[in-house]
Amino acid sequence: MTEHLVVIGADAAGMSAASQARRRRGPEELRITAFERGSVTSYSACGIPYWVGGEVAEADELIARTPEQHRARGIDLRLRTEVTALDPERRRVRSRDLDTGAQEWTPYDHLVIATGAEPVRPALPGFDAPGVHTAHTLPDGRALLDTLAGLRAPGGLGETDGAAAASPRRAVVIGGGYIGIEMVEAVLRQGYQVTLVHRTPEPMPGLDPQMGALIRRGMAKLGVEVVPEAEATEVLLGPDGRPRAVRSTAGEHPADLVVLGLGVRPRTALARAAGLPLGVHGGLRTDERMRVVDAAGTPLPGLWAGGDCVEVRHLVSGQHRHVALGTHANKHGLVIGTNLGGGEAAFPGVVGTAITRICDLEIARTGLNEREATAAGLDWTAAVVESTAQAGYLPGAAWMTVKLLAERGSGRLLGLQIVGGAGAAKRIDIGAMALGSGLTVQELIFQDLAYAPPFSPVWDPVLVAARKAAARI
Amino acid sequence: MTEHLVVIGADAAGMSAASQARRRRGPEELRITAFERGSVTSYSACGIPYWVGGEVAEADELIARTPEQHRARGIDLRLRTEVTALDPERRRVRSRDLDTGAQEWTPYDHLVIATGAEPVRPALPGFDAPGVHTAHTLPDGRALLDTLAGLRAPGGLGETDGAAAASPRRAVVIGGGYIGIEMVEAVLRQGYQVTLVHRTPEPMPGLDPQMGALIRRGMAKLGVEVVPEAEATEVLLGPDGRPRAVRSTAGEHPADLVVLGLGVRPRTALARAAGLPLGVHGGLRTDERMRVVDAAGTPLPGLWAGGDCVEVRHLVSGQHRHVALGTHANKHGLVIGTNLGGGEAAFPGVVGTAITRICDLEIARTGLNEREATAAGLDWTAAVVESTAQAGYLPGAAWMTVKLLAERGSGRLLGLQIVGGAGAAKRIDIGAMALGSGLTVQELIFQDLAYAPPFSPVWDPVLVAARKAAARI
Repeated sequence: MTEHLVVIGADAAGMSAASQARRRRGPEELRITAFERGSVTSYSACGIPYWVGGEVAEADELIARTPEQHRARGIDLRLRTEVTALDPERRRVRSRDLDTGAQEWTPYDHLVIATGAEPVRPALPGFDAPGVHTAHTLPDGRALLDTLAGLRAPGGLGETDGAAAASPRRAVVIGGGYIGIEMVEAVLRQGYQVTLVHRTPEPMPGLDPQMGALIRRGMAKLGVEVVPEAEATEVLLGPDGRPRAVRSTAGEHPADLVVLGLGVRPRTALARAAGLPLGVHGGLRTDERMRVVDAAGTPLPGLWAGGDCVEVRHLVSGQHRHVALGTHANKHGLVIGTNLGGGEAAFPGVVGTAITRICDLEIARTGLNEREATAAGLDWTAAVVESTAQAGYLPGAAWMTVKLLAERGSGRLLGLQIVGGAGAAKRIDIGAMALGSGLTVQELIFQDLAYAPPFSPVWDPVLVAARKAAARI
Repeated sequence: MTEHLVVIGADAAGMSAASQARRRRGPEELRITAFERGSVTSYSACGIPYWVGGEVAEADELIARTPEQHRARGIDLRLRTEVTALDPERRRVRSRDLDTGAQEWTPYDHLVIATGAEPVRPALPGFDAPGVHTAHTLPDGRALLDTLAGLRAPGGLGETDGAAAASPRRAVVIGGGYIGIEMVEAVLRQGYQVTLVHRTPEPMPGLDPQMGALIRRGMAKLGVEVVPEAEATEVLLGPDGRPRAVRSTAGEHPADLVVLGLGVRPRTALARAAGLPLGVHGGLRTDERMRVVDAAGTPLPGLWAGGDCVEVRHLVSGQHRHVALGTHANKHGLVIGTNLGGGEAAFPGVVGTAITRICDLEIARTGLNEREATAAGLDWTAAVVESTAQAGYLPGAAWMTVKLLAERGSGRLLGLQIVGGAGAAKRIDIGAMALGSGLTVQELIFQDLAYAPPFSPVWDPVLVAARKAAARI
């Protein structure tokens, strides 16, 4: 008998699941229907800042697999069709065609909930005006690029007098996390004077403040005005209804353009309405096979979930987290699709690895930072090392600072943070691998890492930090 | 009672051991004497190609710690003093002052043998002529730079007629391993036309031939003439006694300069003469604490060894190898010094990680290649993936090819090889860490590696290779 797999959300997690299931089971065994509110599939949301910044010329380049490609694999893809209700009892979903308004119920044997996340957009005055942008989806990116084009055009958006045409445009980015940082780079590349308004004492609160201070200084060198410990309270609009400034608890910041980088939260209203239990971060909870579980941890029949709408287990703290990242979404999809296709796969959890850059400054972290380690009730010690990413005697060797946290007593590695120049950040993977295997810093010291002068000092800075921490344990 | 530590060889392993021991035990507890044949200490031999190539201006920059710095820490450093005999029975060494010829016996409680390695220089016609160089020590590098300067000078070395002055100089590099490759880059940077003569079908035999072919093609693009499967048999000399060509089994290759990159072997004549047992590669054998052991594996009293003169255990094959690398030497020194200083440290072994580049082409390997896996009696499968080192939609994303070997049945990762552009090779550390913890490819797939478009595709190419291999196991 043919089973029916229904997927809600045709991006990384959903379509990875569908593709992997299809690879293992043909259309005669498994019918697959995927509902997607938007018009595109399987695109790189992480690539949007580089498109907005002008490095990527066309949105099409961010699309890994088109609707046609999915359909050619025997997936019934319904674009611009929103799932409006989920009925787990009767195993069916209700969908609505966004163009015709027509609704219908579709029964399923297996349902993959891959509804993603939505950007945080505070209900504050002016925050929903034109010219105030998020950069979460391709349409978001397109709207932002349209605003940039309008501001560039002579007599275009916000052009109120002749003098303004000569002065550089000003952008205010609100939020100092990954999205905020990446959007600062994007608008810098578009020639804007940029102000970053953020809540914490230093940007990138995923890293400890002493590392964030390095990022702040790097941004200052790029000409970014950084306004810390400030809460944006209002976007002030000009006579054209577009931004003229952002008001924050620290003052008023002139703006022709406002970009919100206030993070995302799981898009789980549908699941909540269906009575599915959500975790503390508002995401669905799953087991390792990515089956949706109830509050007791028991899998609910026929329900799977993955990507930005789920919470994942952090292997270092043991706690659940919401981590919206394309790489996890893809892995979730692989796991779901493998299991649906008759195989066995498990997603073990995350260790909290993240990486970004702002222009030439590379930033990465994995594991727990000080605040997180303390919150997890761990007794930790930290080591900070300033070194170079390549042998220091080579011209152009990039500086890098490494911070490492380890558990007192056991010596278990707890976390790693890196800020530096070219070649610094991707070695965060050393930390990610060590955390994945539960290594102690004493074990880390003797890992056989690659050494040659153009790639590393003879003691990799990560190993130097491990030595320093080991001496304190 | 004051103990006496004697060190033979004042480079990475020896002086790391001395420094670490000194950090833990003051001069009243531990007297330290170090004998060094040469005039410099603690320098980066790995940096010599970049000095010869002109990237590093002065030899001094390659020196991590000077004799004066060591002496300031209470180490009695005897430069230009060669140890000529070792008497383990009576725990003493005989040394000879190379300037005065004076000899003396020095008693020790603990002896660290850190005599390093010596470059292979075949006893073939012309191989010891001036203008035929190795690049193993700082004096070697200086001699090579002197030859380069002489060849550059009008009417200088090898200048036989007016016409020759206008044509570019030709260098033949013999040997296609790491040193050979790095010296090819160095002489290319000095403006030479370069011919690489090597024995194997493809350069870099540490990687499988299909990966070596990528390196060969990269070198061809750089204008290097690659002569494979050729044995150099003679350096033909001109009337000035300097090279005019290299003769090989493949023909005659014009040369103004010849560089030997035929590898190194442990410098253990002293140990051999003292009756210490050597391994199959001619290196000393030690236990994990870096104590010299006899053929039965029993530590010999008071004897320690580390660096390029020892063999190390390969954690994947379980066999002993000779791996001359500064990073291992430093770790050996740390282990020896910690143990001599009253601590506990162990060097677990290596997984065979190595990295290099030739101009913009990055090359790395870890674990076992096909030949080594077969020799170790393993049943393996391989996966090759062509991808990019960054998100493919970013302009300038570098190509990279990954080859992964895994054990059939168990799925244990056996080895990883990478060839590619900027940002490709250092992720070999992912493989090194996985090998260090004995991960399977199924486990590797779900490691939480750093992802952002400027640093990686959403599936890191290493993970794609792991997926591909997992599907075959």
